[in-house]
Amino acid sequence: MKLAIVFGGASYEHEISIVSAITVMEKLSGYELTFVFCDQDHTFYLIDRGNMKAKYFASGDYKKAPVLTLTKGAFVQKRRLGSTEHAMPVLNLIHGADGEDGTVASLLSFFDIPFIGPRTDASVLSFDKRMTKWFAAGRGVKTVAYEELHAAAEHKVSTSMPCIVKPSRLGSSIGVSVVKSAAELDYALDVAFEFDDSVIVEPFIAGVKEYNLAGYRGAEGIVYSIIEEPQKNEFLDFDKKYLDFARSGEVGSAAIDDVLAVKLKMAFASIYEGLFEGALIRCDFFVIDGEVYLNEINPIPGSMANYLFADFPAAVADLLSNLPRARRPQVDYKYIHSINAAKGK
Amino acid sequence: MKLAIVFGGASYEHEISIVSAITVMEKLSGYELTFVFCDQDHTFYLIDRGNMKAKYFASGDYKKAPVLTLTKGAFVQKRRLGSTEHAMPVLNLIHGADGEDGTVASLLSFFDIPFIGPRTDASVLSFDKRMTKWFAAGRGVKTVAYEELHAAAEHKVSTSMPCIVKPSRLGSSIGVSVVKSAAELDYALDVAFEFDDSVIVEPFIAGVKEYNLAGYRGAEGIVYSIIEEPQKNEFLDFDKKYLDFARSGEVGSAAIDDVLAVKLKMAFASIYEGLFEGALIRCDFFVIDGEVYLNEINPIPGSMANYLFADFPAAVADLLSNLPRARRPQVDYKYIHSINAAKGK
Repeated sequence: MKLAIVFGGASYEHEISIVSAITVMEKLSGYELTFVFCDQDHTFYLIDRGNMKAKYFASGDYKKAPVLTLTKGAFVQKRRLGSTEHAMPVLNLIHGADGEDGTVASLLSFFDIPFIGPRTDASVLSFDKRMTKWFAAGRGVKTVAYEELHAAAEHKVSTSMPCIVKPSRLGSSIGVSVVKSAAELDYALDVAFEFDDSVIVEPFIAGVKEYNLAGYRGAEGIVYSIIEEPQKNEFLDFDKKYLDFARSGEVGSAAIDDVLAVKLKMAFASIYEGLFEGALIRCDFFVIDGEVYLNEINPIPGSMANYLFADFPAAVADLLSNLPRARRPQVDYKYIHSINAAKGK
Repeated sequence: MKLAIVFGGASYEHEISIVSAITVMEKLSGYELTFVFCDQDHTFYLIDRGNMKAKYFASGDYKKAPVLTLTKGAFVQKRRLGSTEHAMPVLNLIHGADGEDGTVASLLSFFDIPFIGPRTDASVLSFDKRMTKWFAAGRGVKTVAYEELHAAAEHKVSTSMPCIVKPSRLGSSIGVSVVKSAAELDYALDVAFEFDDSVIVEPFIAGVKEYNLAGYRGAEGIVYSIIEEPQKNEFLDFDKKYLDFARSGEVGSAAIDDVLAVKLKMAFASIYEGLFEGALIRCDFFVIDGEVYLNEINPIPGSMANYLFADFPAAVADLLSNLPRARRPQVDYKYIHSINAAKGK
């Protein structure tokens, strides 16, 4: 099965995406894979499988690879005489900006390239933590209370300590701090505002239970992964998350009862349906007093959350066969024709 | 001042966009304008000013115009020898799909072309009527209650008659019906589902007051247009809206007191700030019992709502000088380098 992995991007998670792509490559050994790297200047490169090593990108060696551009239905490689089209479905594996903010989804949709990944609207709603909360509320899924601060305005925080400070539009815990006392707050805000003009503050709930659940829509409806209780430090900081993106081993299911498992799956379905079709997403939930709260939607989870699926290659194949199709109107110039007819033209 | 008007698009509002572009062309006579037409197959064409007539597009004559592609910072026209770059800010004037759903915003952002129009996130939140409601609630702005129906599910409507039936993701009143009795409901739903798999139903409030207010962020903060009370039929259907997109005459301010005017502007600012910068938008409000309700956000209003501004060319110039800049991270491969160093590589 042919598949192009698109990775990199002008994103704080650029390096994570490289690690993620290498991991997915190893997990999809039965596929005929093509590797398309997007560098921070938004140039696409066709990468040889043999060069799929972190160092190749970090050293800048990738700049010697052939440049690709987008055309209808394919990436194109110019040759001395003519050009070669690389036409195949894409797996969007750019984490953070470009990949998860709707940019790449828009590019691929505009050029009619089928792809695994969230569409533009689903991307926007999951990339921005404020929008995720608005959206979840609209779908009847609870989230933790929050307040929003803007870089330009005065920073008055009314959430009580301990609290958690996050840039509104970044993933992978970048710029996130747990703040235990007022003395630590200013520094945490400075860190978060380094990455975004909008920052959210939430109460930090100690000892909260966390569960991760991935899934996608396949031929038979939504397919759920196992439910994982992630290993907990205070929270995963960037270094740990970074390694997390290279995960490929299997994990065990969380020890939870059926009632909670069903609640988590119902919350997942409420978020997924009618919006995330075409994507394999991972939802991270909190459980507080038996109630399910959505913490985060990862519309392009690290290494595609392969470790949560018993047969990851089969999951990708099922997803590929069930990608949503865009509705495109037929433009017939009916109104212009009728107006011109009325004018006698 | 140089400006490229991008119009057309694979959208039910394709023809409206042509009419809108012609109107804006006439209103921006002091500008050095370039015209970029996007046809329904997503090919861009460079259009001569002399050909900016509805018939030129309806007849298919535009296919003889030079084709443009996107490159960093510009549209490019291939020549027999070499190519010409058309590098200038863009006015995104594609209404509906492509223009208002975040696709064109993503394309222009990816290729670093400055533009007037909503960014990707702002587009998504205003294009989908459900998301507009979720977003408005998150910002503390009231909207009318609604229920959502899906094409695949059974259609049970609990909203009482009369009600209004709308496709979730279309503008310009396409597919919208006012339903007075249960007998009319099925037909109205069929019409709406022609255009979208998701349909919303709202109570139809007879005699409600409607006010339109446009604005943008300029050098001195938000600049508001006059507040217009649109001429009311039951509601503007597509034919009337179509003509509406060619509006260029001035209109009078609505006869409202200062308190209501301030309320409308405050609601506008709540919607606009921190999201719509770079765009000139028109918000359509209802006023019910003195309370302001957001009905619709038009992030690319027909003919740019030029008729609501005393000096439209100056407004466009002010907007052009205050376009938001994207934050782009500097990728330094710090993590890959440090991991390789730890491995002794």
